[in-house]
Amino acid sequence: MPESYPMNGGDSTYSYTKNSYFQKTAINIAKSMIDEAIVDYLDIKEFSSESLNNNTFCIADLGCSVGPNTFNSMQNIIEAVQQKYQSQLGQIPDFQIFFNDHVSNDFNTLFSSLPPETERRYFAAGVPGSFHDRLFPNSSLHFVHSSYAIHWLSKLPEELLDENSPAWNRGRIQYCKAYAAQFAKDTARFLDARAKEIMVGGMLVLIMPSIPNNVPHSMFDLLGSSFMDLAKEELISEAQVDSFNLPLYAASPKEMTELINQNGFFSIVRMELNNLFSCIDSQTTGKSCTMHLRAALEGIIVKHFGSKVIDEVFHRLYEKTQEFSERLESSYKEGTQLVLVLKRKLK
Amino acid sequence: MPESYPMNGGDSTYSYTKNSYFQKTAINIAKSMIDEAIVDYLDIKEFSSESLNNNTFCIADLGCSVGPNTFNSMQNIIEAVQQKYQSQLGQIPDFQIFFNDHVSNDFNTLFSSLPPETERRYFAAGVPGSFHDRLFPNSSLHFVHSSYAIHWLSKLPEELLDENSPAWNRGRIQYCKAYAAQFAKDTARFLDARAKEIMVGGMLVLIMPSIPNNVPHSMFDLLGSSFMDLAKEELISEAQVDSFNLPLYAASPKEMTELINQNGFFSIVRMELNNLFSCIDSQTTGKSCTMHLRAALEGIIVKHFGSKVIDEVFHRLYEKTQEFSERLESSYKEGTQLVLVLKRKLK
Repeated sequence: MPESYPMNGGDSTYSYTKNSYFQKTAINIAKSMIDEAIVDYLDIKEFSSESLNNNTFCIADLGCSVGPNTFNSMQNIIEAVQQKYQSQLGQIPDFQIFFNDHVSNDFNTLFSSLPPETERRYFAAGVPGSFHDRLFPNSSLHFVHSSYAIHWLSKLPEELLDENSPAWNRGRIQYCKAYAAQFAKDTARFLDARAKEIMVGGMLVLIMPSIPNNVPHSMFDLLGSSFMDLAKEELISEAQVDSFNLPLYAASPKEMTELINQNGFFSIVRMELNNLFSCIDSQTTGKSCTMHLRAALEGIIVKHFGSKVIDEVFHRLYEKTQEFSERLESSYKEGTQLVLVLKRKLK
Repeated sequence: MPESYPMNGGDSTYSYTKNSYFQKTAINIAKSMIDEAIVDYLDIKEFSSESLNNNTFCIADLGCSVGPNTFNSMQNIIEAVQQKYQSQLGQIPDFQIFFNDHVSNDFNTLFSSLPPETERRYFAAGVPGSFHDRLFPNSSLHFVHSSYAIHWLSKLPEELLDENSPAWNRGRIQYCKAYAAQFAKDTARFLDARAKEIMVGGMLVLIMPSIPNNVPHSMFDLLGSSFMDLAKEELISEAQVDSFNLPLYAASPKEMTELINQNGFFSIVRMELNNLFSCIDSQTTGKSCTMHLRAALEGIIVKHFGSKVIDEVFHRLYEKTQEFSERLESSYKEGTQLVLVLKRKLK
């Protein structure tokens, strides 16, 4: 079984639902790229000639979590596709949207948060399972979207769990060659599965954290340093910090290009690095980052350190974001979000 | 919003998961009818000529609850369809199964109970929503199954909520002409939606409680009488019992035939009344009935009477099933389960 790291469920203060501001900003920046790609590259005439009786446009959001961002993303895609169908074919298809995440995702919250049937123009379905494996029948999807999901590794690289390995992270939380290798394996599996599921002419949009000049690790460096502070004060042990690893990886545009070319079934029609922080008020950057990280990582941190230190560690992190706010902002300005628009081609 | 009456979730003593013995028996009896109908009536050659690129067979289970019965039913259908494809076309399609129930159903339990990916030969999706409305795109399903679900009314007939109406149920829990009318409306909506979603040549199998000679109300009569006992002992008020209505209806074969003919998009290829109790040991009938009814109805009873009397009322019910076991069994022998196999035709 692949490991999974569900976001905080429900709708309490630290829930993912109430702390997905970053992804929301990411969606807004990515929206115009997606809109343009649909206008320029989506082969709707090919789709409508393929099926004789069934006029349904199928979209999947992989790693959708519990909303509301997934609902906004899906709505944006539907509107762009509708417009293209209307202008090119003079008719609008039915839409069916598949919301995917790990089995441990809170699908009950997701389903109860769906826009009311009177407001949404699509049939909704939830699909539980790892997107590193097959989730859908062959050639059954027209459009696949995945935002802030594929940077989660399917598991920790095994060498990190061996204290005698050189990859054992003394004093650091994450990142090393073992992570890059695990990410490459995971992404190869992801692309293999999607190549089978997305029909020729269909699209795959990936939105993910990325790494120009090793920048995006700064928040994780600050988190690591917060844990080290607690270790120095003997609230947790140093060994606990050493053995803690975050199973995520931010790939560079170059790494992604290589992995996509190795797969061979997709052409890259758009690729862009974005700076998310140009739209966020500098006063609130630190707080937003901290709340966001807590919503995303609380589960995995509690699993390792227990629940006693969780408030304290995020309090320290927040103080550090204030202390290093200038450094944090200037580094983030170089761009930390990669948007990739791929098109399924014949190999 | 239509009302919904979720089964008891989780896996505790009174959970639906641990008390779906009846439905399991129902599935076994219906299995051979379904198998034969697939062999005799399913138009797989028509399906494979309709879609050029996509070789997926789509099945929906409407009102699936949380398992495990839905998994057994789906497995049975898949095996029968596979066999037919293998023998007629020499190849096996991909299968995609849509598990549907109300938004309030415990989909998290359902998803975590799915057979492991290595054992199941289908792609799974959950579809939240009322089956009295549209749930799927036009002509997107090959086979629809619904077991012990359509007898739940979408709402109580309004006249039952008016104390001055002649339909106000003095001393009885359920059943009157108002129920029949509500069931007819609901079933018309159900069939309208399915006629759009199921492709021509596809199948709709309905398994439901039915009413030869007004028999199947006896369990409900005993339940009503248990409530009246509690009212006499002033544990609950008589007014509470009077205003309690179970929103379910067991239709006769004749009623179903009329509703299907009114819809006009389905032909009845098989219709049969079954006696479920021939397979159940007479010693355990009362206990099974009681446990089953508790798993299915606890939510709605607690909502009306509060949780204090719930153990007591089912204890009384169990004692009554022992007292009336002969009457109960002989009446059930006439047949209380209707299995309908319908085929989507051109109108």
